[in-house]
Amino acid sequence: MSYINEQQNKRRKQNFTASKNYADYLQLDRLLNAQTMLSSQNGRVSEDEHLFIITHQAYELWFKQILFEMDIVSKLLATNLWTNEMAMFNILKRLGRISSIIKLLIEHFEVLETMSHYDFAKFRDYLKPASGFQSLQFRMIENKFGLTKENRVNCCKSYTECFNGKKSDEFERTSTEPSLFTLVCRWLESMPILQDNIVWDQYRKATDHWLEESIKTDESYSDKRKLMDTVFKCEQHKCLMDQGNRKFSHRALKGAIIVNAYRNEKGYALANRILESLVDIDTLLSKWRYSHFVMVRKMIGHSSGTGGTSGSEYLRSTLSDSYRIFIDLINLPALILPDTYIPPLTELAR
Amino acid sequence: MSYINEQQNKRRKQNFTASKNYADYLQLDRLLNAQTMLSSQNGRVSEDEHLFIITHQAYELWFKQILFEMDIVSKLLATNLWTNEMAMFNILKRLGRISSIIKLLIEHFEVLETMSHYDFAKFRDYLKPASGFQSLQFRMIENKFGLTKENRVNCCKSYTECFNGKKSDEFERTSTEPSLFTLVCRWLESMPILQDNIVWDQYRKATDHWLEESIKTDESYSDKRKLMDTVFKCEQHKCLMDQGNRKFSHRALKGAIIVNAYRNEKGYALANRILESLVDIDTLLSKWRYSHFVMVRKMIGHSSGTGGTSGSEYLRSTLSDSYRIFIDLINLPALILPDTYIPPLTELAR
Amino acid sequence: MSYINEQQNKRRKQNFTASKNYADYLQLDRLLNAQTMLSSQNGRVSEDEHLFIITHQAYELWFKQILFEMDIVSKLLATNLWTNEMAMFNILKRLGRISSIIKLLIEHFEVLETMSHYDFAKFRDYLKPASGFQSLQFRMIENKFGLTKENRVNCCKSYTECFNGKKSDEFERTSTEPSLFTLVCRWLESMPILQDNIVWDQYRKATDHWLEESIKTDESYSDKRKLMDTVFKCEQHKCLMDQGNRKFSHRALKGAIIVNAYRNEKGYALANRILESLVDIDTLLSKWRYSHFVMVRKMIGHSSGTGGTSGSEYLRSTLSDSYRIFIDLINLPALILPDTYIPPLTELAR
Amino acid sequence: MSYINEQQNKRRKQNFTASKNYADYLQLDRLLNAQTMLSSQNGRVSEDEHLFIITHQAYELWFKQILFEMDIVSKLLATNLWTNEMAMFNILKRLGRISSIIKLLIEHFEVLETMSHYDFAKFRDYLKPASGFQSLQFRMIENKFGLTKENRVNCCKSYTECFNGKKSDEFERTSTEPSLFTLVCRWLESMPILQDNIVWDQYRKATDHWLEESIKTDESYSDKRKLMDTVFKCEQHKCLMDQGNRKFSHRALKGAIIVNAYRNEKGYALANRILESLVDIDTLLSKWRYSHFVMVRKMIGHSSGTGGTSGSEYLRSTLSDSYRIFIDLINLPALILPDTYIPPLTELAR
Repeated sequence: MSYINEQQNKRRKQNFTASKNYADYLQLDRLLNAQTMLSSQNGRVSEDEHLFIITHQAYELWFKQILFEMDIVSKLLATNLWTNEMAMFNILKRLGRISSIIKLLIEHFEVLETMSHYDFAKFRDYLKPASGFQSLQFRMIENKFGLTKENRVNCCKSYTECFNGKKSDEFERTSTEPSLFTLVCRWLESMPILQDNIVWDQYRKATDHWLEESIKTDESYSDKRKLMDTVFKCEQHKCLMDQGNRKFSHRALKGAIIVNAYRNEKGYALANRILESLVDIDTLLSKWRYSHFVMVRKMIGHSSGTGGTSGSEYLRSTLSDSYRIFIDLINLPALILPDTYIPPLTELAR
Repeated sequence: MSYINEQQNKRRKQNFTASKNYADYLQLDRLLNAQTMLSSQNGRVSEDEHLFIITHQAYELWFKQILFEMDIVSKLLATNLWTNEMAMFNILKRLGRISSIIKLLIEHFEVLETMSHYDFAKFRDYLKPASGFQSLQFRMIENKFGLTKENRVNCCKSYTECFNGKKSDEFERTSTEPSLFTLVCRWLESMPILQDNIVWDQYRKATDHWLEESIKTDESYSDKRKLMDTVFKCEQHKCLMDQGNRKFSHRALKGAIIVNAYRNEKGYALANRILESLVDIDTLLSKWRYSHFVMVRKMIGHSSGTGGTSGSEYLRSTLSDSYRIFIDLINLPALILPDTYIPPLTELAR
Repeated sequence: MSYINEQQNKRRKQNFTASKNYADYLQLDRLLNAQTMLSSQNGRVSEDEHLFIITHQAYELWFKQILFEMDIVSKLLATNLWTNEMAMFNILKRLGRISSIIKLLIEHFEVLETMSHYDFAKFRDYLKPASGFQSLQFRMIENKFGLTKENRVNCCKSYTECFNGKKSDEFERTSTEPSLFTLVCRWLESMPILQDNIVWDQYRKATDHWLEESIKTDESYSDKRKLMDTVFKCEQHKCLMDQGNRKFSHRALKGAIIVNAYRNEKGYALANRILESLVDIDTLLSKWRYSHFVMVRKMIGHSSGTGGTSGSEYLRSTLSDSYRIFIDLINLPALILPDTYIPPLTELAR
Repeated sequence: MSYINEQQNKRRKQNFTASKNYADYLQLDRLLNAQTMLSSQNGRVSEDEHLFIITHQAYELWFKQILFEMDIVSKLLATNLWTNEMAMFNILKRLGRISSIIKLLIEHFEVLETMSHYDFAKFRDYLKPASGFQSLQFRMIENKFGLTKENRVNCCKSYTECFNGKKSDEFERTSTEPSLFTLVCRWLESMPILQDNIVWDQYRKATDHWLEESIKTDESYSDKRKLMDTVFKCEQHKCLMDQGNRKFSHRALKGAIIVNAYRNEKGYALANRILESLVDIDTLLSKWRYSHFVMVRKMIGHSSGTGGTSGSEYLRSTLSDSYRIFIDLINLPALILPDTYIPPLTELAR
């Protein structure tokens, strides 16, 4: 069989690097010697500091994993996804994994909260000026996800100020490179079905029809009409963008709507699952933020953070809509036509 | 106020060590540069290996924390607990934290399981002969909790063989030092109320009375009698110990029963909570083992482990009762007198 | 033995009611015949409605359990707790259970969210005007916990309007009866150590001392002084109450501070655990609200709720501090003296 | 537009049934009046019984939901799935939901375990002879999933004996109707690619090739050969079936292997996800059983169950492989060819 011979050649002679045992493989000598309690160095050991260090280190390990998965997703998004079902499945797997990790990170708070506020008070002063605010990896996750500088809340310190040298470069790089948000936008904009206006026009007419039917029966008709105008009238969409209430380009929004409307059609189901997964991650990140906020609130009450931030109030401010990256996908349910009005995809359109 | 002056003197001049930023404090340079994929070194990157490394490193971080907390509990158990309420509260906090951590570790499997068996198959061969079997910290947790050499299942390899030099010493040290099990036993044996036989005799008589009442009405009378004989007749207890069905000394068992019976009396409530917490940890460890077993089963089917063990079947065998440390506390519900028959603690006895 | 005879007499002849099997005991005929899909009655079965019903019914079952436990806690709080350790343990058990239940309720969202927004859209219109807003039991939980009418957000509909007849009475009754908040206040106010001013005066002086030391070294001195004045100056405390920023009476706040300061002293440890448990519940309720908000947001975007509320925005507004019942306990960490400055409890004071 | 008119006609005049409020919709009068404590009827209220009832009722609600979803999956499996991508997506959604529910059910134990064994002892005797063993719905879930009578452990009581009248009929019906297991088997057997032997023969030859390569280098060669013979030699497969070590028909096993091998090919990815989801449910059910076992063990020690079973030991016995329905999918990882050896799907074969 020629195939097998071929494969045989392709298959590389696997000269494994020298085999390792468990401890070497995981570099446990590094990992398990990286916990130094400041309270101990200062001569007044506060045992709970150990938990504080381990928890934050676990967070950073997982942040690294999230960044790793995000990079894979970004690469895949930059390919011609619409004709590559396996790449879509791979993206779904990666996004699902990121969701799983964030869920796990949320569970971490329950462990950290076995430490009381007075346990924390015992070593808190030693930490200054270190602060979770300085987690470069978390900032990079935000950047790579698509949080922009203008959408970040103003803080006592600028974000870049926290980082210097190589770190500052990393922060800058991830804030200028195309984010997941940008790549998803481009992908939606590139949807083949949107290259002409046939399907979109059909969809728009169907919406008009639905609205017309609503006039007689539905007292909320005018609200609906206004809402739909923001979908179909480009300038109204832009107006919302300028106000910061919409983030997708108009074309990307059209793409998202089409994917939703035709989620049961061949080829759109996976795309729709991807959009749903992005909303899941966005939502989970927001739950993580909320859990973080209430935890810090419980730990330090109303005092300010060790890094000079306003403490829990800074965290509360990151719960606003401006921190939700895929806000347009979250708001989508109110923007789409009821299923029964959606025109079928004509052969032409497919 | 003299108190304040006194305090002032006691309070050490706090010359903090040079303050650190977040990344230095957590030693992120070490932590985040300790991930090297063997599949990458071998030229065929298997992206899921990154998750595999991070998950295991996270496990090891938490194992370190568990060991840290166990050591605190051990020290506290070695003090005269019966007259030290605050030490009991501290033990409860530590045990509760260990439980929280194990729950979190169980949740980790959900993240690891976003990797399929064929994802794992891609890099599994590179790992050999590394194996989770070689986790020194996990073995130390088992040792410190109280798992004895004779209760471990026989495995292709001896446990000590895995480790050499300093590691081997650590393994040996933790298997010979007094374990939590031993220290809990000693603590129960030292219960003041057991220093004479007054309360225990009362309790025994009440049991006889209950059994006598049961003769007429309860068809399970003779079973009950037999069971109670194992509690009150020292030689029968020893017999069960020899069979491996009981682990507590007879005196420790008496202590556990008294704590249970008088859990609503001043001084016993906290002791009872400690016993309950030990059962919680034992149970959670057993759930962790089960989750580990089914995960490995799903990942490699029936093939053998990378470290030369029999794979999932080895893990299944660690689910037997011989791996439950506080088996006597777990079995206690069937050994204690119904509440209504328990005689009150006389003034004398307290 | 006279005790045993006595007990024998006390022990009631247990004439069990006719024994039951599992299905009768759980009244499964009622329970499992209480699911009627409106979409089915309307001739267009929407299978996901079944999940919607089951989830909400599960919620209501658990709400009943929470109310049941709250009533037990209320009764216990109304006794003379300070001399009744077992009652405190019982309260802790009940509060811990409530926390466990709320955590479980938060997990429920993950199941409900297996339904997509377009699944929901299929049957949503049938539900009108039913709305979760009309859950009497949830309103009763809020009332019993201590949410007052003035702290509720104004809604299109008044809360009482939702309910009529017996239900309206229940709502009113639970909003006028002493809530957990009120009972906790009274309990703290009744703390024996506060019946004279010895301990409090000592504590105040120690605070002054701490502040004086801070003048030289701490640039935040004046902020601290202002904060501490709100603790020690009754009229400043009242001022904060009038602004809605404090809810405890001044005396109850003093009690909470004393419990925190002396949490390691005999008799205060359990009290302190109770305060921590109340904060846990408060925090978990707030997480439940957040999860609810993001779930509804995902399900209906920005449209209004089926019950005529403003939908997710109504839910978001319940995340404000005015919905946190034990806000004073949450803010406490910023109000208490560092451990090293706290004067010991004199013999006199105990 | 003709399409719209057409739709308009199709769209039924929606004469909603009389609209309902929240309480009526959820039939809360039934639901919330179905809790009667036997301990209360017997005059010795044991407050924890309320939790016991609520937890079991919540379980039964969710069991109903699982059965509901299973029925949908069964119906979909009975259609010609191989050409119906949307049906596959629907199955995946349903199976994913069942997984979510079982995870939630596992979480329920944490709430139930806030009740101690002595809390339970207070009302346990009132329950007899009711027992969780008598949960018809749970037995139906087992039946519908594919647990056969011969694979159930022998118990003091026969399973049918528990149920009478209509219930007994239900039990019998669900044990004779095609189970998910049966339907999945049929679906795999009907795989178009297996209708001739081209692909399978190719796959078999590739396996031979792999084994031949292994002779020289791999000491486990003969083990591998034996294992592979059970895959390719029909009579050896039957032999394993007779021993109870395999449950799939030979043809279904072939189907499962092909799906795994070509999981990255168009059309097989979804099928593979379905197989993975079945393993997930099987695994989660097994975790539920384990959690149930350790909970009961903690609650009653070694005594027998209220329904006359051997208590926890009965539950432990349900953890054996004979209770794993999709054992062949679980064991699959050890039976499939390494990716690099798998021949590509020829145009012919597709």
